[in-house]
Amino acid sequence: MTDISVTCLQRLPIYLNYLKTLDGDGFISSGAIARALGMGEVLVRKDLAYTAAQGKSRVGYKKSELIEALEDFLGCNNKKNAVLVGAGGLGSALLAYSGFKNYGIELVASFDSDEKKTGGKISGKPVYPITRLKDKIKELGVSLAVICVPASVAQAVADELCNCGVKAILNFAPVLLRVGEGVTVRNIDVAANLAILSSMI
Amino acid sequence: MTDISVTCLQRLPIYLNYLKTLDGDGFISSGAIARALGMGEVLVRKDLAYTAAQGKSRVGYKKSELIEALEDFLGCNNKKNAVLVGAGGLGSALLAYSGFKNYGIELVASFDSDEKKTGGKISGKPVYPITRLKDKIKELGVSLAVICVPASVAQAVADELCNCGVKAILNFAPVLLRVGEGVTVRNIDVAANLAILSSMI
Repeated sequence: MTDISVTCLQRLPIYLNYLKTLDGDGFISSGAIARALGMGEVLVRKDLAYTAAQGKSRVGYKKSELIEALEDFLGCNNKKNAVLVGAGGLGSALLAYSGFKNYGIELVASFDSDEKKTGGKISGKPVYPITRLKDKIKELGVSLAVICVPASVAQAVADELCNCGVKAILNFAPVLLRVGEGVTVRNIDVAANLAILSSMI
Repeated sequence: MTDISVTCLQRLPIYLNYLKTLDGDGFISSGAIARALGMGEVLVRKDLAYTAAQGKSRVGYKKSELIEALEDFLGCNNKKNAVLVGAGGLGSALLAYSGFKNYGIELVASFDSDEKKTGGKISGKPVYPITRLKDKIKELGVSLAVICVPASVAQAVADELCNCGVKAILNFAPVLLRVGEGVTVRNIDVAANLAILSSMI
């Protein structure tokens, strides 16, 4: 999945959700999917080519096989757990977000340094004190983490996550994290995205 | 600003914040900035070339001029207002987020269809009923909007925003929005980003 773009990956669950709304188990072509979703047929065909689904010329894909191929590709059948650090406003919103299950991912626990937040649950997920990061990550066997802490402490949190064996970090703090070899970071900077839009109008 | 990448745009406020921590108003080179922030010098020089700052060979940039050029480029001196639709968990977190001011952007109001949320304020920003979208957007003179509503209603909200004259939309709903000519959409799909990371480990 490493060579796929985010924009393509965003479309795959949309195809999946659309296919699930269809009755029966006939064949469906990339053209029919494209028309139903208001997209280009070439784009749909290219996107579906990332999966193991084999389309037949003229008839297209068997619906159930395409659903299975999409679910396999998206990892829906291979559940992965993740933890979140920083159970503030954004962190709490992410703990409540149901969209992760589209990709077979579940946020199973969160961590915070604020004692007022720890010990309880947010959206059913426990909030542990940050001091328990190491033993809980080990216990949960997690190697995927989301950072939602303020910029000033994000690097320290990233260092600790790396020490705990985390291999991939989704970072919402507006800083450039320095991590060791073998650890991957993706940044989501909401403000920078809004700024680019703002500059276009 | 349209040809700049998000990742580059994310770094500019980091340079700006670093420069503001320095005393005095001497010259600073791209190499010194790079070393202080643990980045590559070539990258720093390329990033700063997007701004109007003129570096002098051997000495670098005058600090105050570089700060001004960064602030100008980022739009800090040219405030733009935006509205947010969907004051749920994520929406509330964004209303509370202080990072937008790095780019001179302010979320000035939000809209929701839930009467329990409307009429009050979140992080000091009013929450209006969605029925007041048109007159409030006109009154506020806003053409930038953030969509944080559930996927099922995101297209309807986008249609309404376009009808109200909004020209740029930052969309958090995991759907492909269809908008008319002259309207720009950027999508932030948190789950898709996490899925890509997940596939790498």
